[in-house]
Order: sequence, then structure tokens, then C-alpha cells
Amino acid sequence: MMISERSATLDRTACERLDRDDPLRSFKDEFVLPPNTIYLDGNSLGAQTKGAANRAQEVIADEWGTGLIRSWNTAGWFDLPTTLGDKVAGLVGGGAGNTVVTDTTSINLFKAASAALKMQATDAPERRVILTQRENFPSDIYMLQGLAEQLGDDYEVRLVDDAEVTAGFPNTMTAEVALVVLTHVNYRTGRLFDMSSTTSAIHAGGAMVIWDLCHSAGALEIDLAGSGADMAVGCTYKFLNGGPGSPAFIWVAEALHNRATQPLSGWWSHAKQFDMSPEYAPAEGIRRYLTGTHSAISMSVAEVGLNTFGRADMAQVRAKSLALSDLFIDLVEARLSAHPVEVITPREHEHRGSQVSISHPEGFAIMSALIERGIIGDYREPSILRFGLTPLYIGFTDVWDTVEALRDILDNRTWDAPEHKLRSAVT
Amino acid sequence: MMISERSATLDRTACERLDRDDPLRSFKDEFVLPPNTIYLDGNSLGAQTKGAANRAQEVIADEWGTGLIRSWNTAGWFDLPTTLGDKVAGLVGGGAGNTVVTDTTSINLFKAASAALKMQATDAPERRVILTQRENFPSDIYMLQGLAEQLGDDYEVRLVDDAEVTAGFPNTMTAEVALVVLTHVNYRTGRLFDMSSTTSAIHAGGAMVIWDLCHSAGALEIDLAGSGADMAVGCTYKFLNGGPGSPAFIWVAEALHNRATQPLSGWWSHAKQFDMSPEYAPAEGIRRYLTGTHSAISMSVAEVGLNTFGRADMAQVRAKSLALSDLFIDLVEARLSAHPVEVITPREHEHRGSQVSISHPEGFAIMSALIERGIIGDYREPSILRFGLTPLYIGFTDVWDTVEALRDILDNRTWDAPEHKLRSAVT
Repeated sequence: MMISERSATLDRTACERLDRDDPLRSFKDEFVLPPNTIYLDGNSLGAQTKGAANRAQEVIADEWGTGLIRSWNTAGWFDLPTTLGDKVAGLVGGGAGNTVVTDTTSINLFKAASAALKMQATDAPERRVILTQRENFPSDIYMLQGLAEQLGDDYEVRLVDDAEVTAGFPNTMTAEVALVVLTHVNYRTGRLFDMSSTTSAIHAGGAMVIWDLCHSAGALEIDLAGSGADMAVGCTYKFLNGGPGSPAFIWVAEALHNRATQPLSGWWSHAKQFDMSPEYAPAEGIRRYLTGTHSAISMSVAEVGLNTFGRADMAQVRAKSLALSDLFIDLVEARLSAHPVEVITPREHEHRGSQVSISHPEGFAIMSALIERGIIGDYREPSILRFGLTPLYIGFTDVWDTVEALRDILDNRTWDAPEHKLRSAVT
Repeated sequence: MMISERSATLDRTACERLDRDDPLRSFKDEFVLPPNTIYLDGNSLGAQTKGAANRAQEVIADEWGTGLIRSWNTAGWFDLPTTLGDKVAGLVGGGAGNTVVTDTTSINLFKAASAALKMQATDAPERRVILTQRENFPSDIYMLQGLAEQLGDDYEVRLVDDAEVTAGFPNTMTAEVALVVLTHVNYRTGRLFDMSSTTSAIHAGGAMVIWDLCHSAGALEIDLAGSGADMAVGCTYKFLNGGPGSPAFIWVAEALHNRATQPLSGWWSHAKQFDMSPEYAPAEGIRRYLTGTHSAISMSVAEVGLNTFGRADMAQVRAKSLALSDLFIDLVEARLSAHPVEVITPREHEHRGSQVSISHPEGFAIMSALIERGIIGDYREPSILRFGLTPLYIGFTDVWDTVEALRDILDNRTWDAPEHKLRSAVT
């Protein structure tokens, strides 16, 4: 059956049936979403967890207000980075004791890349090139450029196309390459890279790999340890619903924990944090990747999102995500064919993350018109409308209604109004 | 009049009168403190602001829950680093547009020191030594050691005694010194260093200076711009009452903003953050010192603390702080003289921060006994009991009651019980 035939048999009633039969349907009750809204930007900022507000109240009124400084011990603030880290690890196949939640993705990438390059400087000092996708999230590229500039000594960042990654680096994996930093899912197109085979290709080339899981953690099944990956970083505020700007994570393969220090070596990374010695001595294990004091409030709110995911079956999450994006793509092809719309996201399941990106020359204005109707996706240059599919709170009917709204906006040229052409600074 | 004579005339009634006449007395109503508690650890974690819980609710339920991704624009999340930065600047003489609130003190120090060394590498490449106090907060020292190791090329951190700093670096300010990193107040002893004369001495030696204001911002009057300082960092969770682990700040003198980039060059530091270009281009001005995405929740709660301070007269804060610590020292000398107690904090106002530190061989057990009575200070090795004096919510009667409790514990050897000798990991 062709894709368009598959969807031609679908109507809204069929979508409602799919929602009724959805094994994850009860998870929607764990989120608070505004009325008359279809929220398809959970790949940028996840929705509000129902427990977030109460947890913040507890932390502020009880732990901070009453416990005061003692709560670093009595309320477990001290251990939040490892407590949350292990919860993230459970979702990405990281194993216990290998992950901390702390700082931002960008900063954690700096730590990971610095440590990896230091390991390579011992083992293979001639390797001074860092490869990363040209379409990696720009902040990752900028952090690597900042690191290479700081290191000097011919360290260099080289950008590669997605096709080169998918092909196993036939043209770029030279004996100069020390490190490859890869986003697991392309943030614009939604293309997913195979972690296991890509990691193997990188290791065969003598390089190390750091995966950025910002757009895959909580969206699909990941087996970090099983894939042989060296390190990983990611955020908790997208699919993991940790709250706006909630802290990020860093994962380091156990065998690498103590092989190098990282340069952001604040007191939280010290072997004896409260000895207050003027001599640095790195902690053993993953705590070495901590730096300074974390926000107990934002960490605790992020934990609510992780706890929600802890009750979800990631195989079911992935299956539903693919079913949602299949439906989205099918409906776009079947119902928007009169318009210059192109599906950017790969059709093959093994190359697809948890979003659908489509392009249209008037993408910005179309997204503006959609948002006016309460359907919230986002826009990325050039011409790309992004729709994040978060299986815990998005259903099949939501997808139907979204494509129907798109059809209506395109058929009636609703987008072609002055108010939809105004560009704001952030989308 | 001798110190001991001054206090000998004081009794609890006199302290009550001082509290009644205190021009800052109404500020205590802006904090929520647990009953039967005297909280003298606000120099480690400030008390709960009354508005914090409500503000967190608004951010979570309204801004995150209803506004969702749009709140980056509509709720001002995007500008929180500069909005809060300017509020901090108002308290430390920083001028508008020179400060951002972001990340942790340790990470901000890494950015500042990296940029300063880069400026010096252009102007005076032979200067490769960083001086810092041996008794600077250890995390600062570790960050500088991490940076020096990362840079290699003979970069080196040298530790100097407080007396050397106070004397203007007669023995250590050589032509090799690129940068001096100084805590404004010694976290253990409470010694205050003169910002203006010390900065002048450092500049006369050809070096740059970064001040760590963790133990002085919100505790005393500071004139960063007027002192000629180059850069400063500090936290918001101590005297500024931003909440547990709330984000830190970084200040850069306006003339230096665009002289160098810093290596943690994430997308928030980019000239055109949302162009998503793979080429890094630094923003002009203080935004260059941002890195990744901040927590809107912890930033917004921190803002409540800053707003409270925005209504306080810092000259009154400083005057009351000194009156409180004068009283504390006087009472210790007058009433604890039968015991081996030593006041560590300098007597001279110009060398005193906003805490009183006293030593006793059984300091740890004594602090444990005090905390059991609801009087919360903290303990620092070796043998030091620290009492933070936060003028917005601590009064003269609190000081009286604290010294009386100390006298009782010492006279009756209450501290000499097994439960007070157990060491916990964090104090």
C-alpha cells in the first residue's frame, strides 16, 4: 500500500479510535496544557508536568524556607545531580553511576570534549581535529570552536554533511581526527543517526565520539552503553519536560571516568569537596564532571518530568512516535498535495526522530497563522515548519486536526496577511 | 571606651531598643523564617523571600504552562540574564549593561579569567601567572588551576597570603603576573579587602583583576566601576537571597566588553543567536559572556531577592551590618572570656565583611549544640564557627540571644555530648 493510500482510508474517527486504543493515553493526565491548544513544540520546550508546581512549592516553602542550609543534607539537594543523573540514564541506556544532571548542554559538551581531547593527547597526540555535523545544533559547533581556539596548537573543528555521517565518514575520517561530536537527531530535519554503527565507524577510525541527545532523550529508545559510545550530553527541557531551561546532563562511559580531568574543575568535582583544600584533587567517577552549585529548585522541578518518564515504556513511546509521524507525513502527502509543501523528515523509520519538518516558501507566515489557531509548532530558517511529536501528551486526533488546519490555511491563503509576516526575535 | 566596656553597658533591653530604632526593621517581613530560629547562615544560603513561592507558581503555571514556548518572548525569559544583571549591577556599582546573571560563579570565573588572559596574551604575552589568595574560596582556585592546565604553555596559578594582598603584593607582583583573582571577603575569617587600592596596586603592576563578590554583594557598598576593576563574578544565593543554588553573575568593565571572546561561546553569546549559522560570531557587549539556556524558574525566583534589595539603602545595610558585628564581637569578648574563644574576624571596620568568625578547639561540637537550639550558623575547618549577619532579617536581639546561648553551652559544656561530635558531610 502506498503512503497516500494508507492515509486515504483514515478520517478523524479513525484517529479518535487510535487515541482510545493508545496504551500511553493516560499519560496526558500528567500534564497541564492550555485549553484549545495543540502543542507541537515539545521538542523545543516540553509541556508543564502536573506535579511541577507542587514540587516547587515544597522546595521553596519547606526545604528552603524551613530546612534552610540543612536541606543540602536533609532534603537530598547535595545528591540531586546523581539522583537525577541515574533517572536520565534509565531512559538512555546509560547504566547507574555514569550520569550527572548539571549546568547546560553547551557547558557539559565543553567538559566532555575537553576531557576526550585530553585522553587523545595522551594516546594519539597527532590527532587534533574535531568533526561535527554542519547541521549540528549551532551552540555545539560554537562550543567546539571556542574550545579549539582556547587549546590552540592546531586544534581544529571541521564541519561535515549529514550524508557523510550516515555513510560512516568515508571522506573525512583521517588519522588527524581525535573526536567526533554528533547530534543524535538533526534539530531541523528530524533525521536520526544510528548510534551503534556510527560509533563503530568512529572508533574504527581511531577517534572518540560524543553524542548530543537533546532531540532524542525521551523521544526514542537509546542504548548508550550498548552502542559503545564514549560520552553523551543532552538537555532535560525538551522531550523530558523538565521546565524552561532546566539543567542538562552529561554521561561518560564507565571505563573513561578516571582517565582525564575536565577543565571546569570546580569544588563539586573535588575528591573532598568540604575539606576546602587549596589543592585540586579530582573525585573518582562521574562526580568529576560537576563544577559549581546547582539550583535545587530547577533540579527538583526537572525531576518531576523524569519521574513521569520513569513510568513510561520507551518501546511504546517510540512505537507511538513513529505512528504519529507516519500519520502526519501521510496526511500531508494526501491532503496538501495541491501546495508547494515538501516533507523534509526522512521516511525511513530508522532515520527518523520524533518530529516532522515540512518546508513551504511561506513557512514563517503559515506557522504564524497556525499559532493563531492554537496549534503551536515552530519555524526554522529556511522555510521549515517543525512539528514535535511527544507521545506522552500528543494524540492521533491532534495530528489530524493540525494537518486539517494547515490545509485550510493553505487553501484559503490565510497566511497571506500582514500580521503573519512580522518576524519576532525568537520562534 | 574599650570594646568590653562598650558592651558591658548593653543588655537585652538595649538590644530590643536598637531593633525598634532600626530603619531596616520592616524588611524582616519580606522573608519567611521558621519559628524559634535565629538564622545566621545567610552568608551561605540566604533566607526564603516571601514572594518566592508565588513567583515560582506564576512562572510554572502561567508562563510555562499557558505561555509555553512563547514565554521566551512574551514573559521576558529571553532577557532575564540582562534584566537581573542590571539589578545586581545596581547593588555593586556596576552600571547598566555590564552584567549578566547566568551559570555558576565557578563557570563565570572561567569565562572571565579566560578572556582576561586572552587580552593579556595580546598586550603582554610574557605574563602567564595568575595570583589568587590561598584562602580564596577553593572552587575559584580549582577553576584557575583547571584553566591553567588547559592552556598549558607555562600558565601557572600562584597562591598568596591575605597579608600579601593587603600590603599591595610587595613580594609577588612580578612582570610575569597577568591576572589576579581575589575574593572580596575571605569566606572563613570575614576579612574584607579594599577594592579600590588593591585594584590600583594590581594595575600598577601591569596585571588585571577579577573580584569574587560572593561574600560581599548585598552585604556592603561596592563600587565596581568606580574602583577601576576589570571584571567581577559572584553568586545570588547568599546575601542576595536568590534561592538554593540560584544563578550567578558576571560583570565586565565596559571598556573590555569587546576586547576578547570567552571560550564557553554557546549560542546565547552569538551576535545573531537565531540565525543558526555554523560560524561563530560574538555578540557585542556583555551578552558575549552568556553560554547556554538558563532556567526561567530559578532566575525568576532569584529576581525576587534582587527586587527586595532594590528597595534597601546599601549605606544603611552596611551601617547595620557593622553595628551587628561590633555587638557580636563585643559580647563575645565580654561574656565568653572564661573560654578559649578567639575572634578571627578583623576588628577594623574597613577590613570586615558581614560575618563574625570565632574559633574554639571544639568548634564543631559547639555549632552542633547551637543548631540544636535553633541558632543556625556553620562550621569551617579548622575550629571555626561562622555567623553570617544579614541586616535585612537579623536584629540586635538575635545577636544577644546567640552569644547568650554560646555562653550557656560553653559554661555548661553542653557541646561535650556524643551527638554533637558526629560529622556530617556538609555543614
